[in-house]
Amino acid sequence: MDQTVVLITGCSSGIGLSLAVRLASDPSKIYKVYATMRDLAKKKRLMDCVKDSHKDTMDVLQMDITHHQSILDVRDGIKEKRVDILVCNAGVGLVGPLESQSMEMMRQILEVNVLGTIRTIQTFLPGMKARGSGRVLVTGSIGGLQGLPFNEIYCASKFAVEGVCESLAILLQHFNIHVSLIECGPVNTDFLANLRRTEPGDASLSQADARTRALYATYLQHCDTMFQDAAQEAGDIVQVRVTKGRKIPGNSPFHGKVNWGISKLFQVGNFPWELTGIYGD
Amino acid sequence: MDQTVVLITGCSSGIGLSLAVRLASDPSKIYKVYATMRDLAKKKRLMDCVKDSHKDTMDVLQMDITHHQSILDVRDGIKEKRVDILVCNAGVGLVGPLESQSMEMMRQILEVNVLGTIRTIQTFLPGMKARGSGRVLVTGSIGGLQGLPFNEIYCASKFAVEGVCESLAILLQHFNIHVSLIECGPVNTDFLANLRRTEPGDASLSQADARTRALYATYLQHCDTMFQDAAQEAGDIVQVRVTKGRKIPGNSPFHGKVNWGISKLFQVGNFPWELTGIYGD
Repeated sequence: MDQTVVLITGCSSGIGLSLAVRLASDPSKIYKVYATMRDLAKKKRLMDCVKDSHKDTMDVLQMDITHHQSILDVRDGIKEKRVDILVCNAGVGLVGPLESQSMEMMRQILEVNVLGTIRTIQTFLPGMKARGSGRVLVTGSIGGLQGLPFNEIYCASKFAVEGVCESLAILLQHFNIHVSLIECGPVNTDFLANLRRTEPGDASLSQADARTRALYATYLQHCDTMFQDAAQEAGDIVQVRVTKGRKIPGNSPFHGKVNWGISKLFQVGNFPWELTGIYGD
Repeated sequence: MDQTVVLITGCSSGIGLSLAVRLASDPSKIYKVYATMRDLAKKKRLMDCVKDSHKDTMDVLQMDITHHQSILDVRDGIKEKRVDILVCNAGVGLVGPLESQSMEMMRQILEVNVLGTIRTIQTFLPGMKARGSGRVLVTGSIGGLQGLPFNEIYCASKFAVEGVCESLAILLQHFNIHVSLIECGPVNTDFLANLRRTEPGDASLSQADARTRALYATYLQHCDTMFQDAAQEAGDIVQVRVTKGRKIPGNSPFHGKVNWGISKLFQVGNFPWELTGIYGD
């Protein structure tokens, strides 16, 4: 039986790493995981997690979603010559008063979160269309569903991803390709560590007025508390339960508001999330 | 009595032009309009519309929202040294199969629609914060609320604008600055003429498969019909009714789904739209 080929971006940490480990370690060995990351120097944690259980179930590849050629190289190196499930997970956060954000930084966030996601989908879409089958899972965020103060650019990027995916979902129904967006709440990943965050002592903060700076300090405290109190573990979140072989769920809604993460991502049947359910199928 | 200073982007045509004309021609002369556009060679239509009625009520200025210095120059040239109402209206559309879109074109759309809007708000925000008063009106789109096939990038950009404005609206309540998004449906502006649209004969279309091309042809027909049947006139849309002097509406919701445009934009009182009403005030 052919394995289900899954390509995941952003596997050096967090949800991407946890998902790659879970699928590659599945006792049934029904998944072949291409775990990609921008910097292969960071692959040790992933390799430590899978231990010796990944023979024939995982390849780790370098892929930078901001460089089209890098994605093309990965695509061309896939032995099975197809991707059944594409998981667009790589992304980065940005927090700070709008006045302190440089155009360069804003562009960079859009380049990774929006254009990187589009570029990846664009690359694997023709193959899925030609085969008349495929699944695209995108790691969204609660910040793609509602605005968050001091997160203007991050929310812009995550809202944008919603727009892309909603638009695609309509068309791709004609090709038996299912698009799902999974909007995570706070998750204990390296997200906070990797976040581009304006710190209280940063020079750029002087471009904001005193009241804005005070409100920002309050927000940062709130944010830390929220992550301490409410965040889930990435490992817990990816409780991937494949109940019936390699079947891909066909009755999952497009759009899931997920306060508690991407639990049961591959479970066959209804997704147990609080759903806004724009597009069922 | 001081005039209400209104700065509008994208005034060479469409909603921006109509709004500038309406406010500059108001018999009460309570508005001072800074009508900006990227290319002053296109100012003739605006000047023809206002005829001689714009003395002391309108200045036409060159401003390119993709260049920060251009916005700063306009800001520094405003005689009143303040903007009471900022109308971020400039934007551009992009239609075509995702496979036919170049990275360069996608970047350009994000640069204008997302970063251009942010850059403009960023420039005028410190002044509004310092005065503890202001109003930001942003021309959104129904394509910022729901995905549209073959509009992935346009929707990404308009969803992104939603994310920016929602995030800002939360914070700016603390500064007595009101943000409103006006999501227009089809409007008879130069939008279709100015749209970056992949045409049936374009070479880039060959990058999409036959079925996608056929679906796209169907979509284009549908789109033309929709505009013919349902679009409103820009002039009709800006039925600006100022009922009580220069008062700025304080009880308008943040977020309005507008199937029929930005009618009654400045009307004091409730907005007669089908509202999703995320933030009232």
